[in-house]
Amino acid sequence: MGFARLELVSEHGCFGGVQRFYKHASSEIGLPMHFALFLPPQALAGQKVPLLTFLAGLTCTEETFSMKAGAQRLAAQLGLALLMPDTSPRNTGVDSEDHHWDFGVGAGFYLDATQAPWSGHWCMESYLLKELLPAVTAEFQLDSKRQGLFGHSMGGHGALTLALRHPGVFQSLSAFAPICAPTKCPWGHKAFTGYLGQDESIWAEHDASLLMAQQKTAPYPGGILIDQGLADKFLAEQLYPEAFEAACAQAGQPLTLRRHAGYDHGYYFIGTFMEDHLRHHAQALAQA
Amino acid sequence: MGFARLELVSEHGCFGGVQRFYKHASSEIGLPMHFALFLPPQALAGQKVPLLTFLAGLTCTEETFSMKAGAQRLAAQLGLALLMPDTSPRNTGVDSEDHHWDFGVGAGFYLDATQAPWSGHWCMESYLLKELLPAVTAEFQLDSKRQGLFGHSMGGHGALTLALRHPGVFQSLSAFAPICAPTKCPWGHKAFTGYLGQDESIWAEHDASLLMAQQKTAPYPGGILIDQGLADKFLAEQLYPEAFEAACAQAGQPLTLRRHAGYDHGYYFIGTFMEDHLRHHAQALAQA
Repeated sequence: MGFARLELVSEHGCFGGVQRFYKHASSEIGLPMHFALFLPPQALAGQKVPLLTFLAGLTCTEETFSMKAGAQRLAAQLGLALLMPDTSPRNTGVDSEDHHWDFGVGAGFYLDATQAPWSGHWCMESYLLKELLPAVTAEFQLDSKRQGLFGHSMGGHGALTLALRHPGVFQSLSAFAPICAPTKCPWGHKAFTGYLGQDESIWAEHDASLLMAQQKTAPYPGGILIDQGLADKFLAEQLYPEAFEAACAQAGQPLTLRRHAGYDHGYYFIGTFMEDHLRHHAQALAQA
Repeated sequence: MGFARLELVSEHGCFGGVQRFYKHASSEIGLPMHFALFLPPQALAGQKVPLLTFLAGLTCTEETFSMKAGAQRLAAQLGLALLMPDTSPRNTGVDSEDHHWDFGVGAGFYLDATQAPWSGHWCMESYLLKELLPAVTAEFQLDSKRQGLFGHSMGGHGALTLALRHPGVFQSLSAFAPICAPTKCPWGHKAFTGYLGQDESIWAEHDASLLMAQQKTAPYPGGILIDQGLADKFLAEQLYPEAFEAACAQAGQPLTLRRHAGYDHGYYFIGTFMEDHLRHHAQALAQA
């Protein structure tokens, strides 16, 4: 499994590794897609390192996490490759694709749309699982058996749902301020109605808390780490960490959910707790 | 000395401290100005901490370093406040202020313009030295006797020249890829001609290498730290670190100038070597 066509857009020396930006022809999406990749010095030296994929939030691109999260320093020390996909297809020809900041461009919600005009190009779940991750691990000789997944906000929803929907692919999981119960919140209602239609039984297949509540045994026995700021203006209306907490308790899934006074929804919050997330993944992936 | 009017634009919890963005009425510039300030946990706890000011490069704002450099983590550990000024006045009423990316808005060059239409509002040197730094140290009860200065590119020029033109204000100094000899390079010629006029003897007062060559004794006996990437596309035409190196040798000024293969002019380079700069300043300021 590899890339149909892969173009290096730019590369930057970074903590002894390289931060690269790529463009490729995506067969799943049917359009060019961009992603960012950090290769730690261990990978440049020929070592087969684990891959940790970060899914970003609404309005973000492949550059946001790379530029703002300060993750490369410790990823270089720990020997983790970091993959940063874009958050949706772009320039799809759908007239209304950029009419909303929380739906359409920059808001792919990490699922495959079934509703016109979004079905076809809007299939971030298939893109990531069937195409990008296999192609990146093959192309850069990363260890496809040691993969971690994390994300922020919409990308936290993506991380939790994709890790539950695709058992065996990821060996470690965490999230920053994830949308934990999209079937309950305005962002989720809007996205699911637009992309998936009115049938709420289909929505449930993309709700992390509902998915977790169905688990018979803990899917991530090493534990899931979630950080949530208490000064996050989206917390009460959009995020529902308590729903995911209850579902984990029900499923016997170990969860470390930390609530932090004074921290908001942005990258200063993410940066502050980055080290704990990278160490969480490195430890689980070392045991995988 | 304080602020005529200071408005908190936003604040974000960050590594146990706070990252704040402020707007204030500047009497030196005669217009509103923005700046960013990171206060480490020690300052929030009432300790009088040193102030380290970062001067950013062409096109940057007060947000650039704050967002991209990853400096807050270690500044929080070391107990350093970080001040991040904007790079020029904005909305000055000068029609051509934004016609060039390397002159006018985002390109104040940390000097006081003498030429119309720039004189008056374009006076970043007076703004920083006579107004912003005294007001910030007073307002936030920082230690005005322990101040460090660093910067990048145009801001590296600013750091080196202001630290040499205002002896006694700063106790530590470093730079990333600074414009070391603006009288020799296209960026400097354009800025100095526009802001200072044709008289090259006046230009010399704002050229770090010429200023250093005039020193009778080492102005920073603890040493100056400069990092320079060798994959920096501006190195050959614009930066001239070798001129500053020669001037330091002549003045007996200890200089650590490190040249790094594979690193370019951007914030991935800056982030990589940030820790060394913060430790350089913390050490010098601890002894001040």
